[in-house]
Amino acid sequence: MKFHVNLVKTVDDSYDIEIGSNLLNNLKEYLTESLQQQKRNIAIITDSNVHTIYGKNFEKIVKEAAIQAAAGENAVKVNTVVFPAGEKSKTRKIKEYIEDKLIEWGYRRDTLIIAHGGGVVTDMAGFVAGTFARGVPFINYATTLLAAADASVGGKTAVDTEAATNLIGLIYQPKKVFIDTATWKTLEQRDVSGGLAETIKHACMADKEFFGYLEENIEKVFDMDSQVCKHIAEKNCEIKYNVVMIDEKEQGLREILNLGHTVGRAIETVSDYTLYHGEAVSIGIMAQIKLGRKFGYCTQDDVNRVESLLEKAKLPVKIPQEIDKEALVKKLYTDKKVRGGKLRFVFQKGIGQMVQFAPGTNAANAVYSNFVSEDTARSIISEL
Amino acid sequence: MKFHVNLVKTVDDSYDIEIGSNLLNNLKEYLTESLQQQKRNIAIITDSNVHTIYGKNFEKIVKEAAIQAAAGENAVKVNTVVFPAGEKSKTRKIKEYIEDKLIEWGYRRDTLIIAHGGGVVTDMAGFVAGTFARGVPFINYATTLLAAADASVGGKTAVDTEAATNLIGLIYQPKKVFIDTATWKTLEQRDVSGGLAETIKHACMADKEFFGYLEENIEKVFDMDSQVCKHIAEKNCEIKYNVVMIDEKEQGLREILNLGHTVGRAIETVSDYTLYHGEAVSIGIMAQIKLGRKFGYCTQDDVNRVESLLEKAKLPVKIPQEIDKEALVKKLYTDKKVRGGKLRFVFQKGIGQMVQFAPGTNAANAVYSNFVSEDTARSIISEL
Repeated sequence: MKFHVNLVKTVDDSYDIEIGSNLLNNLKEYLTESLQQQKRNIAIITDSNVHTIYGKNFEKIVKEAAIQAAAGENAVKVNTVVFPAGEKSKTRKIKEYIEDKLIEWGYRRDTLIIAHGGGVVTDMAGFVAGTFARGVPFINYATTLLAAADASVGGKTAVDTEAATNLIGLIYQPKKVFIDTATWKTLEQRDVSGGLAETIKHACMADKEFFGYLEENIEKVFDMDSQVCKHIAEKNCEIKYNVVMIDEKEQGLREILNLGHTVGRAIETVSDYTLYHGEAVSIGIMAQIKLGRKFGYCTQDDVNRVESLLEKAKLPVKIPQEIDKEALVKKLYTDKKVRGGKLRFVFQKGIGQMVQFAPGTNAANAVYSNFVSEDTARSIISEL
Repeated sequence: MKFHVNLVKTVDDSYDIEIGSNLLNNLKEYLTESLQQQKRNIAIITDSNVHTIYGKNFEKIVKEAAIQAAAGENAVKVNTVVFPAGEKSKTRKIKEYIEDKLIEWGYRRDTLIIAHGGGVVTDMAGFVAGTFARGVPFINYATTLLAAADASVGGKTAVDTEAATNLIGLIYQPKKVFIDTATWKTLEQRDVSGGLAETIKHACMADKEFFGYLEENIEKVFDMDSQVCKHIAEKNCEIKYNVVMIDEKEQGLREILNLGHTVGRAIETVSDYTLYHGEAVSIGIMAQIKLGRKFGYCTQDDVNRVESLLEKAKLPVKIPQEIDKEALVKKLYTDKKVRGGKLRFVFQKGIGQMVQFAPGTNAANAVYSNFVSEDTARSIISEL
């Protein structure tokens, strides 16, 4: 006997991203309004770096919103959970630590989570929110250029295990994102550059005009020119959004976001994370464009322009001497694009487009990656 | 500047439940077909009890499907992860153990998970599936009456922490459910009775005719009459489905599934789990109907019929002597229906309907629970 469970439904996961310099008042306004609509206890999740600089004031603002929304009645709970800054905190253990804190403080289904920090905080807080009481709403207050470039659109959340990166997680969308460019001024230069690597990737991939804009203006990011910062944050959201919206489930198109990451991720690991993610991606971008030059996907002038833009962003364009290049070649095989034990790359086509290798049956599932022999990969790596 | 991320979409989480005696061949057929459509490595997740009795043969059947689907090519991986049977295994630690096993064996995005067991296995395997590689498909092969009554419809998955029950988890739907009534014959009588408690709850809540059927036939379940077992499995699915489909997100209606669970869950905990969940729910059903009698929601004849049906199902209808009744009253306050520090109950209206206290703006959000003073609750508990 068969029993059919019919669960077809329309889901609306839409949200707004607000981009600007110093958005704490906007956050306060947004929170006051949403708490008036629905009372929820608030848990701020942040890391030790962000907490040291901004934590106290941030919690104060959130508490003010809670009191304002309550208007004389009991205001909702507001607490902050802090975990150690850094990629190494993306573990199931830290997730448990945060959950246990929330439970200890009496948080249940009526919780609203605010992620306050960069990409690691967004990943962690989003994952906690997605499985707490089977899913509670979360807001993302992003404080880094990398989070603006990468983590604010797409809904990917995850933790690492010792044996696998980003394998345990969820697609879980925030209710609202704030990208506060004023907080970029407390970033170290290497972190700014790291965010610019993903920004340049986006331009190479999808927007020739934006690439030109970056050639003109990228150095102003280091002076924290607020107009330039804002434009860069906007463009990053727009470009990533256009990809993710078409291919949320990684059928094919979304693979283009992997530009520069084939060699990049491998270098990051082989360097034992002494190279930051963005720095490794910068070298990875050089690897794919030089390969692309060989295959005729772009001109020498394109290669030169990309190299010079990465250098303006204070990013490395060559493999550091201490990296064992043979170990790097081996490491390429752990890439998620590997099929049947063969390496695959995605390539930019000139500047602002991607090489498509096969059309799909729809916009989401076209093929953008192609096989590259180990010898060819090795020859590019030895040149770099 | 605001950037709108538009994520409205239609999602189809529909699936079929197949109910019958010995469905291994149906499973094999289903797997062969789905592996032909899409190759996926298979991980069977089960507990030590089920594994001891059925594990070897089950894995053999799944492997046969894998080989058949491959038709000469390389068959996909098939492995079984076993965890210790019992409620106490519903932890984040066991979830990690299972994940680490899968990763160690090389499972990645192309994984299909099969839950093989009762409610705990379904909960655990569903949660693992929901967060592995941000969600892989899973199939549920349910071996207990309780799983048929409770865990096969609704998509709720979760683990417990030391401080909170079912608080960390997801709503994650299976692709297919098999309810194999032949496996009920290896259940202990207490487990059969436990499943019948949820069955009787469903009848009290929503189906007078089914209640009458149970009065006539419930004893035949202990003889494993396959027609009766099948009918009971079907009715459980149907009744729960009708509730869950209307109110997937627990806006209101779904609260009626809590019938008997206010006192039931408290007794279960205060007994330190020496009473099984279903046994505790049985006493909880008596508590709400006796309360309901006081409030005029049902007649003494209704009370007698329910009591006698529970007894036919070999379930307790009185609080065991060793339970501290004052501790039990205190424990009621940890119930999730408590609001503003006040106890709330849901009640059956006669047999086969629920008391509605306020109509909602839609079918999903009507109010079915009402405040009960501590003294009134205490007086019923002292009577039981």
